[in-house]
Amino acid sequence: MSAIDCVDTIAEVRAGLDAARSRGASIGFVPTMGALHEGHLALIREARDRDDVVVVSIFVNPTQFNAAEDLAKYPRDLDRDLALAAEAGADLVFAPQVAEMYPPGATTWVDVEGLTEGLCGAARPGHFRGVCTVVTKLFNIVGPDRAYFGEKDAQQLAVIKRMVRDLDMRLEIVPCPTVRETDGLAMSSRNVRLTPEARAQAPLLYRALTEALVAVENGERDAVRLKAGICGVLADADLARIDYVEVVDAETLQPVVSVDRPVLIAVAVFFGDVRLIDNVTVGV
Amino acid sequence: MSAIDCVDTIAEVRAGLDAARSRGASIGFVPTMGALHEGHLALIREARDRDDVVVVSIFVNPTQFNAAEDLAKYPRDLDRDLALAAEAGADLVFAPQVAEMYPPGATTWVDVEGLTEGLCGAARPGHFRGVCTVVTKLFNIVGPDRAYFGEKDAQQLAVIKRMVRDLDMRLEIVPCPTVRETDGLAMSSRNVRLTPEARAQAPLLYRALTEALVAVENGERDAVRLKAGICGVLADADLARIDYVEVVDAETLQPVVSVDRPVLIAVAVFFGDVRLIDNVTVGV
Repeated sequence: MSAIDCVDTIAEVRAGLDAARSRGASIGFVPTMGALHEGHLALIREARDRDDVVVVSIFVNPTQFNAAEDLAKYPRDLDRDLALAAEAGADLVFAPQVAEMYPPGATTWVDVEGLTEGLCGAARPGHFRGVCTVVTKLFNIVGPDRAYFGEKDAQQLAVIKRMVRDLDMRLEIVPCPTVRETDGLAMSSRNVRLTPEARAQAPLLYRALTEALVAVENGERDAVRLKAGICGVLADADLARIDYVEVVDAETLQPVVSVDRPVLIAVAVFFGDVRLIDNVTVGV
Repeated sequence: MSAIDCVDTIAEVRAGLDAARSRGASIGFVPTMGALHEGHLALIREARDRDDVVVVSIFVNPTQFNAAEDLAKYPRDLDRDLALAAEAGADLVFAPQVAEMYPPGATTWVDVEGLTEGLCGAARPGHFRGVCTVVTKLFNIVGPDRAYFGEKDAQQLAVIKRMVRDLDMRLEIVPCPTVRETDGLAMSSRNVRLTPEARAQAPLLYRALTEALVAVENGERDAVRLKAGICGVLADADLARIDYVEVVDAETLQPVVSVDRPVLIAVAVFFGDVRLIDNVTVGV
């Protein structure tokens, strides 16, 4: 018998959790698309620390991909993921097929307006609608007390928090710090797709962001100059193609002219067809 | 102390229901916009029969109105509604202000595509998005085991059932038969706004629908001829202006050519600025 339960139907998830719920156990939930890395494992460990039962979902959600090719390329290795999730402390993994999550005739969408139009939303129309819809479904299936999301996906985190607030979903969203390689590159399932040359240049994203942080600490408030500084650092990565460099209000995600409130400094950069994102937040 | 609890905050609803939930009581929920009539009371009585705790919401939801004028005209009488709800067996009424349901910056919407484009959706763009969003919120606030909806609002019922299925909401939707005046007119909060002359003509809606039912029983299968028959009956109401007369698939709400499956025969008719709807379903 395996050390971790893995189920693929909604009915099994509910049956597996109802007993725990009725005895008052708290349920922590970590939604993932698999290809687990240290970032995901940190979320699972945090859930293990705080909740009585830890549920991980592994579902490569087709409705949040813009390109069928990107969806097809997404790495999948369930056995490896199960072993890693178990070791990090998960009790139950929900790994459904697409037909279980999107039966024929599914036409309902959850959409957060405003927050989803800039940053990654501009380049990926419909992406956050797919994210919000599948996360709503997963929340309704699992019924967690807390759900854990990484700060690396800063816009996703802001959108999910807004959705939970706006729709009165009864759970707490727990943000967890970005986990990085020793050279600073943010952990991502996409990193394995980088060429060796791109992988060598990719740490410049975080170096550029940390230099912006230092500039703010030294008194810089002008968003245009901060962005220019970041682009200057990224210019050293000759394989990089910048998608965006933005300084936005940390809550509304609207661009700011000056760092006069908590802001998010966020970048998205392509290396070939691999798109990496990273961000830092700045309080004032 | 009043015989019924009436609260206006989400926190009070949850506090009021958590004890019942934790002792295993089932929660029945009847969402309304107030102006309660026998149709609503039948829903409350059905919930009283089937559930341990009965919650009624009274909220004139601004996001489902197309015209500010229609919203302003919607009848409101909380004291009367509370007395009626208590008499029908409600335990708790949730009657929030708009700011409690839609705090500043609320930008999240739940949308059911496809089902919402025809029938009432065609004349009322955004209406069902407003309905789905507020019903999702109310479900998340109340956490019911069952929610009761009238069959008079047939499209709303189909949309809510689809939404619950698509988003894996964990509750049962209980449809309840349309309650009618003795002359056949379907109960509606809008009936009080009819002029005496329009009120005298309004029962023709149901008469037209029942004649269509009889025609199907006698072998008629052609949707065009059924609709023509309904329009013929409604022609006797000289104050009536037809919005739509439709024969649609009972589940997908797509128009049918022939009654070769379960169908919904639905009508919407204006008397002045008062829009009345009614429907019958036909199995085959």
